[in-house]
Amino acid sequence: MQVQIKSPYLLFLGDEPEESHAKTAVGIAHWRPDSCVAQLRLPGSGVDLGFPDMTPAEAAAAGAKSLIWGVAGVGGIVPEHWIPTLFEAVEAGLDIVAGTHSSLTEISGLADAAEKAGTSLIDIRNPPADLPVGTGVKRSGRRLLMVGTDCVVGKKFSALAIAKEMVDRGMSADFRATGQTGIMISGGGMPIDAVISDFVSGAAEVLTPANDDDHWDVIEGQGSLYHPGYAAVTLGLMHGSQPDAFVVCHAAGRTMIEAFPDFPTPSINELIDLTIANGKVTNGKIRCVGVSVNTSELSEDERKEYLQKMSDETGLPCVDPVATGVGPLVDHLVEVFK
Amino acid sequence: MQVQIKSPYLLFLGDEPEESHAKTAVGIAHWRPDSCVAQLRLPGSGVDLGFPDMTPAEAAAAGAKSLIWGVAGVGGIVPEHWIPTLFEAVEAGLDIVAGTHSSLTEISGLADAAEKAGTSLIDIRNPPADLPVGTGVKRSGRRLLMVGTDCVVGKKFSALAIAKEMVDRGMSADFRATGQTGIMISGGGMPIDAVISDFVSGAAEVLTPANDDDHWDVIEGQGSLYHPGYAAVTLGLMHGSQPDAFVVCHAAGRTMIEAFPDFPTPSINELIDLTIANGKVTNGKIRCVGVSVNTSELSEDERKEYLQKMSDETGLPCVDPVATGVGPLVDHLVEVFK
Repeated sequence: MQVQIKSPYLLFLGDEPEESHAKTAVGIAHWRPDSCVAQLRLPGSGVDLGFPDMTPAEAAAAGAKSLIWGVAGVGGIVPEHWIPTLFEAVEAGLDIVAGTHSSLTEISGLADAAEKAGTSLIDIRNPPADLPVGTGVKRSGRRLLMVGTDCVVGKKFSALAIAKEMVDRGMSADFRATGQTGIMISGGGMPIDAVISDFVSGAAEVLTPANDDDHWDVIEGQGSLYHPGYAAVTLGLMHGSQPDAFVVCHAAGRTMIEAFPDFPTPSINELIDLTIANGKVTNGKIRCVGVSVNTSELSEDERKEYLQKMSDETGLPCVDPVATGVGPLVDHLVEVFK
Repeated sequence: MQVQIKSPYLLFLGDEPEESHAKTAVGIAHWRPDSCVAQLRLPGSGVDLGFPDMTPAEAAAAGAKSLIWGVAGVGGIVPEHWIPTLFEAVEAGLDIVAGTHSSLTEISGLADAAEKAGTSLIDIRNPPADLPVGTGVKRSGRRLLMVGTDCVVGKKFSALAIAKEMVDRGMSADFRATGQTGIMISGGGMPIDAVISDFVSGAAEVLTPANDDDHWDVIEGQGSLYHPGYAAVTLGLMHGSQPDAFVVCHAAGRTMIEAFPDFPTPSINELIDLTIANGKVTNGKIRCVGVSVNTSELSEDERKEYLQKMSDETGLPCVDPVATGVGPLVDHLVEVFK
């Protein structure tokens, strides 16, 4: 009942001149290079992810199943000169997978062409139908949820990094995606913020089903309990995930909720307390196992001092997933749950 | 941008033999008798709400604008012999207003007949389109939210009773409905649990807009922060409502969340603490002003003792809105906010 994407992928980059506008494709290439057969660039593209350049037909012949829309849309409008490539893709038997602001079904004739070719236009913002109300019933397996002081503080990155670290150590672990980029990276997931509010915790239960006792679902968080717009999503995701453990994600220097200038971000300890107070409704043993901070705006000395101070304040390992890696978080998690 | 219903009403009771299956109509008759022109009963009905019996044409001639589906559906199927009345209603120029499990648009020809007559089939479970993301920006006016230890503990009844008490005292107050029965009673509102999770707090902001400084919106609550299925709805409603004050609603003797036997209901003080911890995100001055308990299963002596004990534990007025009335809650609210 999750959103599912067929892999491997042909990464579509259009003619984007800047890599910063191709974040989705960059993320897929970084985290799931084995899922990528090729890239498709139009004249003028300034992005190179290092995969062979192929047409849709060539990629399909090489095994690709889906063309992944790897670039940001321009105000939701698909550039006219990109459209022939999309028709080539469906005619080559590829699904087209896209997220926000893409309007695939509004491209005249594309839906018909896809139906004729037996392929799908997949908008990964559409949640599955018939999601259940959450039951709260305890499931087997372990779950680790990212929670944030705000949006855009590295929850997806942290979850991907932790899941990778676990797998690299031979642990049984899956990254569970709750947003569109995460879903594209992992090939499946739940666009949790598009779910009707009555079914959010149920959707999170579907995303993180019963599993082996020693298996970890590492779950991408959404929003923040302190976010005046999105906290409902955050809470429903947490209740349905019934996390055994959580990691607080933060961006160093962020003092106010982004785009909500009247709302301060919480201290790490405040967020830990409120997360436990709410999370214990579905998991009485919920606990924080560490803090993951984006310190990219700090110097190396500042970073060291910052992480040490935060570790002193929380009594937990505090890392930057890029600069220091997430090893200390996983060490602590393994120790706590051994 | 709220759901709106045209009044006055013709209350449709079908041939329900039992008043307990006509709760919506009973509620409307109790709280908004001035909104009702007539009732419509089919042969075999065992319900009498005391209004004149009229056909749709007679009710329309008497001023009615909407036929209100006042009875529970039978598994979502509209009884065959009720259907002619629905056609009579649209042909008489009445909107038909219904909620859960009604399938008005599936009745062959009814939607066409309504369109031809220029009337509407209104499913009050459908939220308005284009709801915004919540902003959290402080609005003028006062807001009082009902919060519950569980679902079905009297949040709607308490809010209606408090709003009525305020109006009876000459205060400026509106009941704000968040569920289908409440919406039918008050003629408008927001089916908050049907809103996509990203927009729940925004929907609550739309429901309770800026108002005069001394005006109170008395807001029907939904779910519970302790409910493993519905807490996301509860939190989004609270953040968007940015309540200055809240009343805890409870049903005496309820110890477990209804239909969720592994989940205990919280103590009143636990719920107060968690409500304040979450609610202060959008209103730093949020406070509890009392407790409203359904004590219908207790004897009079037990009730007195129960409410006294609860009042001692919380330091707040504790009432049964039916047995004692909500006067003490409003007294306290007025005192606190004078």
